[in-house]
Amino acid sequence: MNRKHVLDLDDFTADEINLVFENADAMKEILSRPIKRVPTLRGLTVVNMFYEASTRTRVSFELAAKNLSADVVNITSSGSSVVKGESLVDTIITLQALGADAIVIRHPEAGAPYLVARHLRGSVVNAGDGCHAHPTQALLDSYTIRERFGFVSGLKVVIVGDILHSRVARSNVWCLSKLGAEVVLVGPPTLLPPTGNGQSSRLGLPPVQQSYDLDSVLPGADVIMALRLQKERQQSGLLPSMREYVQLYQINRTRLSKANPRVLLMHPGPINEGIELAPDVAYGPQSVVADQVTNGVAIRMSLLYLLLGERGGGA
Amino acid sequence: MNRKHVLDLDDFTADEINLVFENADAMKEILSRPIKRVPTLRGLTVVNMFYEASTRTRVSFELAAKNLSADVVNITSSGSSVVKGESLVDTIITLQALGADAIVIRHPEAGAPYLVARHLRGSVVNAGDGCHAHPTQALLDSYTIRERFGFVSGLKVVIVGDILHSRVARSNVWCLSKLGAEVVLVGPPTLLPPTGNGQSSRLGLPPVQQSYDLDSVLPGADVIMALRLQKERQQSGLLPSMREYVQLYQINRTRLSKANPRVLLMHPGPINEGIELAPDVAYGPQSVVADQVTNGVAIRMSLLYLLLGERGGGA
Amino acid sequence: MNRKHVLDLDDFTADEINLVFENADAMKEILSRPIKRVPTLRGLTVVNMFYEASTRTRVSFELAAKNLSADVVNITSSGSSVVKGESLVDTIITLQALGADAIVIRHPEAGAPYLVARHLRGSVVNAGDGCHAHPTQALLDSYTIRERFGFVSGLKVVIVGDILHSRVARSNVWCLSKLGAEVVLVGPPTLLPPTGNGQSSRLGLPPVQQSYDLDSVLPGADVIMALRLQKERQQSGLLPSMREYVQLYQINRTRLSKANPRVLLMHPGPINEGIELAPDVAYGPQSVVADQVTNGVAIRMSLLYLLLGERGGGA
Repeated sequence: MNRKHVLDLDDFTADEINLVFENADAMKEILSRPIKRVPTLRGLTVVNMFYEASTRTRVSFELAAKNLSADVVNITSSGSSVVKGESLVDTIITLQALGADAIVIRHPEAGAPYLVARHLRGSVVNAGDGCHAHPTQALLDSYTIRERFGFVSGLKVVIVGDILHSRVARSNVWCLSKLGAEVVLVGPPTLLPPTGNGQSSRLGLPPVQQSYDLDSVLPGADVIMALRLQKERQQSGLLPSMREYVQLYQINRTRLSKANPRVLLMHPGPINEGIELAPDVAYGPQSVVADQVTNGVAIRMSLLYLLLGERGGGA
Repeated sequence: MNRKHVLDLDDFTADEINLVFENADAMKEILSRPIKRVPTLRGLTVVNMFYEASTRTRVSFELAAKNLSADVVNITSSGSSVVKGESLVDTIITLQALGADAIVIRHPEAGAPYLVARHLRGSVVNAGDGCHAHPTQALLDSYTIRERFGFVSGLKVVIVGDILHSRVARSNVWCLSKLGAEVVLVGPPTLLPPTGNGQSSRLGLPPVQQSYDLDSVLPGADVIMALRLQKERQQSGLLPSMREYVQLYQINRTRLSKANPRVLLMHPGPINEGIELAPDVAYGPQSVVADQVTNGVAIRMSLLYLLLGERGGGA
Repeated sequence: MNRKHVLDLDDFTADEINLVFENADAMKEILSRPIKRVPTLRGLTVVNMFYEASTRTRVSFELAAKNLSADVVNITSSGSSVVKGESLVDTIITLQALGADAIVIRHPEAGAPYLVARHLRGSVVNAGDGCHAHPTQALLDSYTIRERFGFVSGLKVVIVGDILHSRVARSNVWCLSKLGAEVVLVGPPTLLPPTGNGQSSRLGLPPVQQSYDLDSVLPGADVIMALRLQKERQQSGLLPSMREYVQLYQINRTRLSKANPRVLLMHPGPINEGIELAPDVAYGPQSVVADQVTNGVAIRMSLLYLLLGERGGGA
């Protein structure tokens, strides 16, 4: 892969995405071994900088790096110099000088990973920045779809929830569009990007369909991807009533049955059971939520390998 | 050991406990080497989930796993998705999918490790759940007694303090009873389980003696185990006066001299010096508090080996 | 090195400091390799106890230990028994019993590392204690000066800022004096130790010059070391106005030009850009701030090697 950073998927080609997937296939083989460890990145240091709370993504990157024998250093906002008001740039220059070969960063501000990339000689992987992008999540999502269907192109993928504030949705629109899927964004008007149907939204995304009416778009859906609803949205006036949201947009057994028989139910987690997913479908037969998590480790191993593999000591 | 989890000791046989001890003997030999490391669990991932503050137990498990060459991932409640209100079950399904081979969990709610065990294909070790159980602490306590006396059966063990709220006391009652020790629980009436002397308590424990009068039970005691007194007990009205508690239940030199000459003084730590233990006895000649800590690493290595040893890459 | 601990530099000889530097040269060679890892301390456990927020120093020690193949256990005040009010001595006895070979400690109270050293059979490295000492920072500072000039003796080093509360300044006065540098401490009267010019201060430091007038001491300066200004100083009345401080003591391009042409600009980080350093000089051509960070890893590797090297499994 001829790139140093993974900041978003807007500048990835379909070929590059498929290269990531093919490497992830090899990584899944490693994950199936009793000893899930190869020496590829031995002697390299990956710094996990998480400025937002996270379990799954932080641990996923940590295990991905450790499976490749890299050293992992964790930095969280509590207990670090963030408390002292140290600037992000100063922190990056420091981590560079300390010998970081790659920085995985989650940050509440959109664009923060780009700032990091400008100051780091090593590689930067965006693990989620504000409402902007979450490229490794989108890659693992499409990888999971490809694993089940054998392909992504031509599939109808319905993404439902708070599209407006979702970095997961944004990166998925890029990834799925590049791979040739038909994407439909669904949610209440207040939580959809301000654009007409089928037009390129003002958010700089590729043109995809939008709808307020989940039930009308479900027929023919191959994949339903439900997003986590931040309960704060209600307080900020964007969501009149949680009960109404559940009624109109919750994925439950009835709604699932309207989609294709082989439909996949996806969710980036953590799930608000009873809100965006009914409890009986969250881990039901159509759910691939656990597969998404496992595939996340493989995708992150693949990316770390493609970014750093030539520099490691065990290649 | 024909078991997948260590949740409490109520379902352990004496034979199983002795198997844990014999393996711990082998682990202590490893701990005495200059390089305290064997490859037994290489390639396996142990997740330390601590939802309560802890140094000694968390570090003890971390070192136990690392000494056996397992990878260790630490998750604490701050900085994790616990902050987002993620459900415990969702977290467990995620950790399962991420590849956790064992989860070590400390949780403020009694029973939480049982919930985890129901959802995890891997092994669960309870590192303390609410007021319910702390099985690895009880095992290391009995192991320390056995190390000093050569046996546990027939010894008189006095456990003194806030019995009612102590998971350490509860698991010790199970362990010591199964090994044939004579257990006496001592504390103020408000901090003892509601039961008559020598009867099975309503807490579902095996029948053991109880007493309010420490000085009357000390003669003949082979082991005195003092518990940490939570200072909050006084605020909640269960403890009329700290001064009175110290006067009646603090272990000091005078009280120690009433017990057997070879009496062992134990404490699970951290010690409130000047409350449950007088400063001059806390680390005095009868104290085996530091041995308990060292033996804790050996016991946890033994358990991880017995639970996971056949799956590791270096066996 | 015939010593067990590194608590401050007051008891180091110049020969010992040079031994640390010579070993650091060897460590820098290791850091330049693609695989920055040697087996020297394999099987040994280094505990990082940080009771104050820190990124660079904590990560620097963590990487130094990992590069030497030691196991690293991190303990921060949040999430540990510090929350339970566990005493420092009790924690140390516990860590000793758990098998810690060395403890790296940062603590808000001056003298805390000495207390630890009295109770630990293993080695203690002071990573900063209150306003008292920060010996590894001073060593890396002098090492960076030596790297650039080839020597330290005879150089004029101006340390500017809140000298009174700076453990960095104190340890640097010891280190630079022992190596034969000419040290000048500069700051507002309220932030300088209470002593006359050129006399031994009441703080127990070697006699060095002091001045309130930065501009008059800059001519002939070979090194300018700016300290981080704690903004709290203004609230406590020690600093009448931040604007005045910036006017009189900020290092900017004009002031740098008054010093020697090859002057080095140093800062222990994290930098308050716009306060003690103007943004255009912080990482400008004279700045060696990033070198200080890199050299910090080498110096800490050198110290851990000298303290523990004979006990490790890979020597």
